[in-house]
Amino acid sequence: MTAAPSPGNSKGAAVGEEGRYLEDYAVGQKFHSGPLRIDEERIKRFAAEFDPQPFHLDEDAARDKIFGGLVASGWHTAAVTMRLLVESDLRPVGGIVGAGADEFRWPRPVRPGDELRIESEVVEVRPSRSHPDQGLIKVRTTTLNQHHEAVQIVVANLVVPRRSARDGRPQ
Amino acid sequence: MTAAPSPGNSKGAAVGEEGRYLEDYAVGQKFHSGPLRIDEERIKRFAAEFDPQPFHLDEDAARDKIFGGLVASGWHTAAVTMRLLVESDLRPVGGIVGAGADEFRWPRPVRPGDELRIESEVVEVRPSRSHPDQGLIKVRTTTLNQHHEAVQIVVANLVVPRRSARDGRPQ
Repeated sequence: MTAAPSPGNSKGAAVGEEGRYLEDYAVGQKFHSGPLRIDEERIKRFAAEFDPQPFHLDEDAARDKIFGGLVASGWHTAAVTMRLLVESDLRPVGGIVGAGADEFRWPRPVRPGDELRIESEVVEVRPSRSHPDQGLIKVRTTTLNQHHEAVQIVVANLVVPRRSARDGRPQ
Repeated sequence: MTAAPSPGNSKGAAVGEEGRYLEDYAVGQKFHSGPLRIDEERIKRFAAEFDPQPFHLDEDAARDKIFGGLVASGWHTAAVTMRLLVESDLRPVGGIVGAGADEFRWPRPVRPGDELRIESEVVEVRPSRSHPDQGLIKVRTTTLNQHHEAVQIVVANLVVPRRSARDGRPQ
């Protein structure tokens, strides 16, 4: 998607060149990513380093555990989701800087060979009270598998610079 | 810490051998981990795969960005926290299985050389309404650096089997 240039954006191409300021976001805007495949070898390697439990490490051991087979660590899914968010058209000026999340769920596990993509929606846009040069956007990001089932839902708060702050600085 | 054997635990050593059932958890119990050092090379390698943004990838590029220097991806901190949780004495039977989180914050960035450890506290214990053989514990996990400053706070819901379910099965 392409945001309409705001009145404060004299270049008109700011979104394409440097990303979006707070003023470029509005509730209801949606952003997407292409798919990324999660293979078995990577699931096991991530788990060996960060989440060494049988249902993430070994297909045989995983079979009689809670998930009935090998599944990715939820933190692997979260990390892949971040990758997809960076590659999406969300593109805040200065990068994706998260202050935290209000909600975080894994409704379904990710299995070897799943292809993940994201759908993000802006649900809130507000200037910061304590930092007049920045604001916060609240973004609901749903990570979907190839069957269009949600495997992760995160409602995150991102810090985004305000265009007014840029215009106040020497160019 | 060591939980007192519950009345339903006839062996008395179940916590040591197989981990804790729902009945072994109580509000106010605390669990800890030893420290784990986050080095610069690993910060960059994690970022290259999952969070390729300048402030996670390159010390020079990071200097004039929001954090004033290289910092770990928040998802790297989350993944390391999971590792520390697996290594801690929390040890639910069947493994650490997260249903999601109610709160997720990164109050302070993680920098190269930081040594992280966790402090977890059980804040709620309840049987599941829909699955009589399991319950949920709500655990607040604070990840601290070597200066005892919180770098991540997560309040997560974990699925834990009930001992009564085990005792109902043939041994």
